[in-house]
Amino acid sequence: MVTLHHLSNSRSFRVLWLLEELAWVYDVDYQLITHQRTQNYLAPDELKHIHPMGKAPILIDGEKVLAESGFILEYLLKKYDINHEFKPTDEDGWELFTFWLHFSESSMMPPLVMRLVMQKIVEKSPWLIKPITKAIAKKVEDLVIAGNINQSFDLLESQLSKTTWVAGNKFSAADIQTYFSAKALDSRGGLGERNHIKQWILACEERLAYNSTTVKGGKLFDANDSQKSVK
Amino acid sequence: MVTLHHLSNSRSFRVLWLLEELAWVYDVDYQLITHQRTQNYLAPDELKHIHPMGKAPILIDGEKVLAESGFILEYLLKKYDINHEFKPTDEDGWELFTFWLHFSESSMMPPLVMRLVMQKIVEKSPWLIKPITKAIAKKVEDLVIAGNINQSFDLLESQLSKTTWVAGNKFSAADIQTYFSAKALDSRGGLGERNHIKQWILACEERLAYNSTTVKGGKLFDANDSQKSVK
Repeated sequence: MVTLHHLSNSRSFRVLWLLEELAWVYDVDYQLITHQRTQNYLAPDELKHIHPMGKAPILIDGEKVLAESGFILEYLLKKYDINHEFKPTDEDGWELFTFWLHFSESSMMPPLVMRLVMQKIVEKSPWLIKPITKAIAKKVEDLVIAGNINQSFDLLESQLSKTTWVAGNKFSAADIQTYFSAKALDSRGGLGERNHIKQWILACEERLAYNSTTVKGGKLFDANDSQKSVK
Repeated sequence: MVTLHHLSNSRSFRVLWLLEELAWVYDVDYQLITHQRTQNYLAPDELKHIHPMGKAPILIDGEKVLAESGFILEYLLKKYDINHEFKPTDEDGWELFTFWLHFSESSMMPPLVMRLVMQKIVEKSPWLIKPITKAIAKKVEDLVIAGNINQSFDLLESQLSKTTWVAGNKFSAADIQTYFSAKALDSRGGLGERNHIKQWILACEERLAYNSTTVKGGKLFDANDSQKSVK
């Protein structure tokens, strides 16, 4: 049995969700250990004693201590998803799956995190220098944040105008990986008129396993929490 | 035959390098199209006409237009690496390979890019506000950059103290993926006393395919260029 070290409102939501999907289909059993964020909304120090990166998700399987969402999803699929329910095996499906598994975390998330960091910096600036901080944040936004976010989510919108799910017409773990990034933007009203993404978010949230995930691990980007998070 | 759209001093170095490795072992033939950066050291607009993200690498294979380094490496291995020369098939090797393929781009690169962006912002600030810009950059460095970079590269140092290459005792495409991030830090003197990483960088650079890559695609983080890059 594997153990997931989960942190609320964090990337470990993805792993918990896949474990719930695997539980519904294969009766996979797992242990859940939930950690609480510090007062500054950071990951607690105890996670560093489990894995040196000190972040969630961390998956324990016997002697193995595994980190990194994309890898952990692949690991769980290899271990439990023997009928390939959550990863396409046809060539087109495999390509879309592998692209979105990487793209969601490598290209979509970094500018979203950078935007959050700059917003924090502005919020916490003393009023005297706040106008300058705002101007700097705007510069970073214009230089490397807004364009990258728009291009990434336009690409996702385009994908979802062609297929029901990100890797084709069947739900897969690439939807789980990508949902987190899309929901992060959506929770701050950033999706604009990208209606295919909005419909797909609703379709994700209608899944039984999604709902059991929120019951066990807490809702993602809860309104009270989302304003506090910096990473 | 595939075509690589390459941009100097960019992530497409990785794909070019793997293509060169595949050329040495399997006589894989490919077409290389090299693009030049703009005066502001950005990717040229022409890349947007090839793939909507407008970045390198872009791999063309017939009708397919593929982006995202980690995915393209997996794609090329699946297509050409029939003897698994560049991806381990044993369980431990597969796990290390998959971890580092994701981790290099999802966890190592973002804080390196953020540091570069903040340095650019400081450099370009008018002198009157430069002290404030520096203070803000330091805040971001302390809050989310330095700690993440140190933890990531400590993890890599620890891995390379146990195995010759990142996925075990045989070179793989995960070394190619990870080398780019490590070289980015090293080119700015950021590796400190991490001697296993330094030795591994030298071992990477001694490969025949590495050298033919630099001949065809230009050296990575050339001293003249590395000061200019923002992404």
